[in-house]
Amino acid sequence: MKVMMRRMTENAAIQPVTAEVQARIRASFERQGLMRHLGACLTDIGQGQVRIKLSASPEVSQQHGYIHAGAAAAIADSAGGYAALTMMPADSEVLTVEYKINFLVPAAGDLEAVGWVLRSGRTLTVCRLEVVSTNGSQRTVVASGQQTLVRVPFQSE
Amino acid sequence: MKVMMRRMTENAAIQPVTAEVQARIRASFERQGLMRHLGACLTDIGQGQVRIKLSASPEVSQQHGYIHAGAAAAIADSAGGYAALTMMPADSEVLTVEYKINFLVPAAGDLEAVGWVLRSGRTLTVCRLEVVSTNGSQRTVVASGQQTLVRVPFQSE
Amino acid sequence: MKVMMRRMTENAAIQPVTAEVQARIRASFERQGLMRHLGACLTDIGQGQVRIKLSASPEVSQQHGYIHAGAAAAIADSAGGYAALTMMPADSEVLTVEYKINFLVPAAGDLEAVGWVLRSGRTLTVCRLEVVSTNGSQRTVVASGQQTLVRVPFQSE
Amino acid sequence: MKVMMRRMTENAAIQPVTAEVQARIRASFERQGLMRHLGACLTDIGQGQVRIKLSASPEVSQQHGYIHAGAAAAIADSAGGYAALTMMPADSEVLTVEYKINFLVPAAGDLEAVGWVLRSGRTLTVCRLEVVSTNGSQRTVVASGQQTLVRVPFQSE
Repeated sequence: MKVMMRRMTENAAIQPVTAEVQARIRASFERQGLMRHLGACLTDIGQGQVRIKLSASPEVSQQHGYIHAGAAAAIADSAGGYAALTMMPADSEVLTVEYKINFLVPAAGDLEAVGWVLRSGRTLTVCRLEVVSTNGSQRTVVASGQQTLVRVPFQSE
Repeated sequence: MKVMMRRMTENAAIQPVTAEVQARIRASFERQGLMRHLGACLTDIGQGQVRIKLSASPEVSQQHGYIHAGAAAAIADSAGGYAALTMMPADSEVLTVEYKINFLVPAAGDLEAVGWVLRSGRTLTVCRLEVVSTNGSQRTVVASGQQTLVRVPFQSE
Repeated sequence: MKVMMRRMTENAAIQPVTAEVQARIRASFERQGLMRHLGACLTDIGQGQVRIKLSASPEVSQQHGYIHAGAAAAIADSAGGYAALTMMPADSEVLTVEYKINFLVPAAGDLEAVGWVLRSGRTLTVCRLEVVSTNGSQRTVVASGQQTLVRVPFQSE
Repeated sequence: MKVMMRRMTENAAIQPVTAEVQARIRASFERQGLMRHLGACLTDIGQGQVRIKLSASPEVSQQHGYIHAGAAAAIADSAGGYAALTMMPADSEVLTVEYKINFLVPAAGDLEAVGWVLRSGRTLTVCRLEVVSTNGSQRTVVASGQQTLVRVPFQSE
């Protein structure tokens, strides 16, 4: 099987976000019980691009010992959601409207999901999603997808 | 917001599967570490249709206390996968090629995912996915999707 | 190949729309140059459900003489768009945000696309799409999909 | 509205295909009645990447004079299909299993669709799809999608 190496590589020159945006996104991520329960880590927050890592473990496995597609998709969904949020005003929340994801090869090794913004509008945002497995020094794209999100007013709790 | 009640209701008359198929699918589900870690239960296995339940808990939540879209999608993906498997010869495994899922309303309460087969071919299967939340006696469709799966030869471990 | 007959059948009791809505939707359809160029006909407009027919012809074929998937998807997209529009206030337009469609079997014979609303919100609508081929008295589901649409204010021309 | 310029740019160094592959793909395209009826042109065939152009005209319009999403999706679908075919043995045909496409902005001006292979397997291929509008010297990404295809044995006619 050939996996084309023409990756949709993220821009090398991602713009940083302000400390306020960093703090707001990290606080939101901390409140996602699922991400904590899976052991996911929010590793990078750039303007329009966010990365989340997930270590391989029995808790996120499917029946053959690979990482469950559902776990890979969950971190990709969160990465895209926070990437969208970096482009929005401070009083915004974001909801996933829908996503579509292809699983290209079974996910062996630890995973890194990246979500980046393709189109950022006033109401709707479209993100690309990619999940890469890292097995030693080798990086393989294991899943690729696309996501639509909607901005909603911030609801204080 | 209006949610149309013209649901894609599953056939009332689902055919049962043999005890052998039941046992094979339950054994596979037991090996899915993610499903156990999330607390998901495989509740019904019919010919071409499978249901999986997930109780609301902090471990599967997103930042506002609803169930994380990633958890809802994960049980929907597994339900569709096992629905596909019920239609295949005994020496088969199934892999998710891709799915697409819309999140219609935030998922409050416990969830039930159902996957059912739209088209079952020699190589490829297409399933419909639906996730319903059950809040007391009220059932609300919270997510709706479509999934493509591929049959692969069984790999003994 | 088995195609499961558990169709996502549309409700038998579709509510009619007002003459004003009928007229507004038919006028919009008439302005879609592509639909006219393909020879598509808008056959039914109900509350939250619209049907469009397309006859088989060399002008809509692919390389093996079947109807091109692109033509089937185009009428499905329009059917879903107008289904969404039936649920909206008179000063609304609708745009397709995205859709996903599976092609289940090659499309032989004439086609009928139906789009129906799953969830109708203030801003976003989600539709199911289905394309059926009619070969004599036999009806076969040839494509099945899901679509997201956004309401925008009417722009007079 | 901001459209991120971090495009999933196609590789600058696309490998050429053999004259035999060129001829085979052009002959297949010529038999697609829909592409001819829409006025689409197959402009570039590289290894794992194909481009198709479509000029704006009333015949491919929607109700506001933009190019109909269905026409944009149809050329994207064909571009992806032929991109997949460039990676396959000579006795192969390819069928679209499914695609998902987001429409980012209304399509004004002429269109160019590009499909490129993300993952090429023995049975299944996954492509990225992109549609760009060219209005004078300005290029805008108007649609972005992802497609799954299946290889089938060549059926001589």
